[in-house]
Amino acid sequence: MSTLATQLEQMENHRSVFEDAVRQLPLPTCAAFGSAAAPRPIRFAASGRVLGTRDSDTVARHFAQTVAASGNAVLHGAGAATPAGGRRVAALFSGGPAAGGHNVLCGLKKMLGAGNTLLGVQGGPKGLLAGKLFEITDAHAADILNTGGFDFLGTDRTKIKTPEQFEQVRKTCIDHALDAIVIIGGDDSNTNAALLAEFLYAGVKPDGSGVQVIGAPKTIDGDLQVPGLLPISFGFDTATRIYAELAGNILQDTRSSLKYWHFIKLMGRSASHVTLEVALQVKPAVSLISEEIAEKKLSLGALVDQIAQTVIARYRNEGLKHGVVLVPEGLIEFIPEMNALIAELNDVLAHEADAFAALAEAGRAEFIAQRLSAASAALFASLPPYIVAMLLAERDSHGNLQVSLIPTEQLLIDMTRSHLARIAPDVPFGSQHHFFGYEGRCGAPTLFDAAYTWNLGLTVGALILDGRSGYMASISGLSSGGEPLAIPLTGLLNVERRHGKDEYVIEKALVRTDAPAMRYFAARREAWAATDRFASPGPRQLWGPAAHQMPMTVALNDEADSLRFRIGE
Amino acid sequence: MSTLATQLEQMENHRSVFEDAVRQLPLPTCAAFGSAAAPRPIRFAASGRVLGTRDSDTVARHFAQTVAASGNAVLHGAGAATPAGGRRVAALFSGGPAAGGHNVLCGLKKMLGAGNTLLGVQGGPKGLLAGKLFEITDAHAADILNTGGFDFLGTDRTKIKTPEQFEQVRKTCIDHALDAIVIIGGDDSNTNAALLAEFLYAGVKPDGSGVQVIGAPKTIDGDLQVPGLLPISFGFDTATRIYAELAGNILQDTRSSLKYWHFIKLMGRSASHVTLEVALQVKPAVSLISEEIAEKKLSLGALVDQIAQTVIARYRNEGLKHGVVLVPEGLIEFIPEMNALIAELNDVLAHEADAFAALAEAGRAEFIAQRLSAASAALFASLPPYIVAMLLAERDSHGNLQVSLIPTEQLLIDMTRSHLARIAPDVPFGSQHHFFGYEGRCGAPTLFDAAYTWNLGLTVGALILDGRSGYMASISGLSSGGEPLAIPLTGLLNVERRHGKDEYVIEKALVRTDAPAMRYFAARREAWAATDRFASPGPRQLWGPAAHQMPMTVALNDEADSLRFRIGE
Repeated sequence: MSTLATQLEQMENHRSVFEDAVRQLPLPTCAAFGSAAAPRPIRFAASGRVLGTRDSDTVARHFAQTVAASGNAVLHGAGAATPAGGRRVAALFSGGPAAGGHNVLCGLKKMLGAGNTLLGVQGGPKGLLAGKLFEITDAHAADILNTGGFDFLGTDRTKIKTPEQFEQVRKTCIDHALDAIVIIGGDDSNTNAALLAEFLYAGVKPDGSGVQVIGAPKTIDGDLQVPGLLPISFGFDTATRIYAELAGNILQDTRSSLKYWHFIKLMGRSASHVTLEVALQVKPAVSLISEEIAEKKLSLGALVDQIAQTVIARYRNEGLKHGVVLVPEGLIEFIPEMNALIAELNDVLAHEADAFAALAEAGRAEFIAQRLSAASAALFASLPPYIVAMLLAERDSHGNLQVSLIPTEQLLIDMTRSHLARIAPDVPFGSQHHFFGYEGRCGAPTLFDAAYTWNLGLTVGALILDGRSGYMASISGLSSGGEPLAIPLTGLLNVERRHGKDEYVIEKALVRTDAPAMRYFAARREAWAATDRFASPGPRQLWGPAAHQMPMTVALNDEADSLRFRIGE
Repeated sequence: MSTLATQLEQMENHRSVFEDAVRQLPLPTCAAFGSAAAPRPIRFAASGRVLGTRDSDTVARHFAQTVAASGNAVLHGAGAATPAGGRRVAALFSGGPAAGGHNVLCGLKKMLGAGNTLLGVQGGPKGLLAGKLFEITDAHAADILNTGGFDFLGTDRTKIKTPEQFEQVRKTCIDHALDAIVIIGGDDSNTNAALLAEFLYAGVKPDGSGVQVIGAPKTIDGDLQVPGLLPISFGFDTATRIYAELAGNILQDTRSSLKYWHFIKLMGRSASHVTLEVALQVKPAVSLISEEIAEKKLSLGALVDQIAQTVIARYRNEGLKHGVVLVPEGLIEFIPEMNALIAELNDVLAHEADAFAALAEAGRAEFIAQRLSAASAALFASLPPYIVAMLLAERDSHGNLQVSLIPTEQLLIDMTRSHLARIAPDVPFGSQHHFFGYEGRCGAPTLFDAAYTWNLGLTVGALILDGRSGYMASISGLSSGGEPLAIPLTGLLNVERRHGKDEYVIEKALVRTDAPAMRYFAARREAWAATDRFASPGPRQLWGPAAHQMPMTVALNDEADSLRFRIGE
């Protein structure tokens, strides 16, 4: 075997040139923790800020122990603490993967040090129920440092809900003599952390004490934010930089090939944070922001007309036959008339299911149309056949349409094409469509996400050593060194009716149309639509002059004076 | 407006942090040219190597002037030359975009220097016919240096074929007083360069002299290669690194989420170079190489069974419910029985078009099946309905099916699922599919592509100043400093029957199953299939320790001793 073949074989199992190099990157560490090599535990103390929601009274009754302990006060660092020892801490990933999860484990392991034990839970919440735990060593941590994905532990989407499941968790705590559980996840997972924190608050261990529960804020969607306290969830920067590179490449392709409009759907569930960030990065002709469309109560027809007018103006004024349209994954549910139509359809299909099922394929659309309101019937008639077929397809177990399966990007292309054929048949409209999704969840973390999650892990560890429970770790002040914070989870909870039952939820942070990032976008987008002014942010860099950026939306909303993040500076 | 908002606005029009930084990167320059700051022209002389194909005699008759001048001998550098002045050179992009095209222009501009004029042709060959030329300045070159795409000039796919088109080119040469044309394109575009070189060889300018034509080897597909002379076309490295990053991200996602088989189709037309390179970079469970499938005469059923056996073995032996399958874009045309079926279908549809058109939708498949050979009828019956519908859909103007439109990745998923349901119903098989294509053509060039194309541009310029015509520029010795070469285009030409007419073609370089890269892949793939051994190559880096890689297939096939390219070292 040649020398090169041997080298290539040694790159198997996460040993690419890149992966070996990122393991050696320096770790920017917030001043509160001292040095990266030997970060020290800190004490936490209540800051002036107390959180609450419209449902705080209900929450206080149901989370009596954790609310009594925290007073819903945000905690900040209050100086060095004496290292505690002998704690056994279990950490798990929950929900979809996001870049930086491994560094949360690395920071946590570092903070716990040799005097405490860190256990990894395999396969997410399901592994916690089944008691699938193993000890995480320093060698493991060195191996996963600065790498993407959740593949070291795996993850799943199980929600811990039933009394039996809570008992199973208690059993795992006892079997493994746990002192604390760390849940690395999104809004639902952190709600679960709040519920577990209360359930395990006392009476778990032989001495009658409880098991602490701490959350870490993860989601590429960016919809887990707390103004002034949690600037962004981890994974958002990496995912949006991946999508922005690809969208930038496509923009350069449109101006090179000179013939296509590319419609790009971007992952990110309901909120349009991902789309807004990518729009700011690449400056395409059209970017749809669901929250604004809902606020303006735009109809689907009006939206399609807006797109078509841009297509027409670029061709007539500039001779351009190309452009890019960014479409947020959750768009459909933000168009009021689509919501009305879907609700009416769900209703008809539920109440006349047998009559509908007895019909031949060809008669179904007509049968439905007769039973809709005039407005919904008109909208229904305007939709392409494959969308009609989807709207009449099987419902989920709750009788609801799976809106996320509708190929919005294709729908917009087809409706724009028909509309153009009517109002401007001379305007050429070649098209391509894309969905950027899975590619963005497990990429190698940006320096921003790597630094942010390392410090989140240190904060989680320090909170555990300080005896805290029911908090979510955060780092604020990303442009000025970074400050570890702890957000009381009960201070974020609301009560929401889901599937006929009251449930606790952390409300998703949607794009605010009055936020600085949105205002900046609104001020520039007409110029971007009029003619090509796009930029290519390129592949994210871990070394060199382009490596230290933070998300543009975060920098604008935080009123930072540059894009450079300064964690640990 | 805040300071940050001002900064962001200044990033419009290709001024992202990344784009501003790459313009400052050093330019590795082959020793033959002296320094990057002031590269000097060189003379060329015949090396020992003379090229030829089975059709060389026919070619020599039809390309009498260029063959007489070159003798089909490969040229290499033969020392410094006195700079020539007063030349007017027009350059154009042809065909799909690829990373590095801008640097070919920059190298060419640099070599021509202040004493000669470089013109850019807008919008590809069509712009040459229409005479859409403008002068490229030093400021333009500084602006596009190390950026991706062909957006500075634009491109198109027009082939210059008819006598009228050749006359139009002659007119453009006269109108713009051109001394040389540079065509930056793939196999077809370089064939066009050969034809133009012969046509313009003499009698164009008032003094009776001709216009030189030089080609540069571009294509992300990697199918333009000449063993020992042209290691790879430019753009291949960048595109495959983009696809490999995304495939690596997906692999980490499979091992994080633990539930899906992802089938990824990769752009690259007929040849499987792109798939082989990405396979070597990420080491997935299954990678299909079309050329090997054709060589082994595998049936579609046998191929599906191979995939299913890997799915079964990974689940039964390792408990894995996930994996990645790489699928080359051109796969279908390499499966002999699919070719036979498509040929029979084209035949039946051509000869019984009226009878077929008169049938109702429901009766069509049956009508066709009765007219196929037993083998083709059996294959036809095994295909899912949407593939049958495509196979019976409209033909192109030559009566052929557009094979590239068949969603191969979806077909393989559906057939694997059906096959598993029959032979191993207990084995779970969740799936997702992807097509990585446009995202890879216009990304910012890797350092490899940036260095390679800068030197290709210098070589093109030196060939023009040395009075050569009918050559394609190349750089060989990528692991040992880099040596400029000129390949006589007539030495690569074959005659091929296309649409009932003899045409000159440069034969596409397919993956050779006995090449070192393929042998290495074949030796490792069973280990990659048995359990996860993947790596994540990460985003391509322009700075730092992971920046200097060349393609793994190129390094293996060139028997290099490492992945590091050493152009200019």
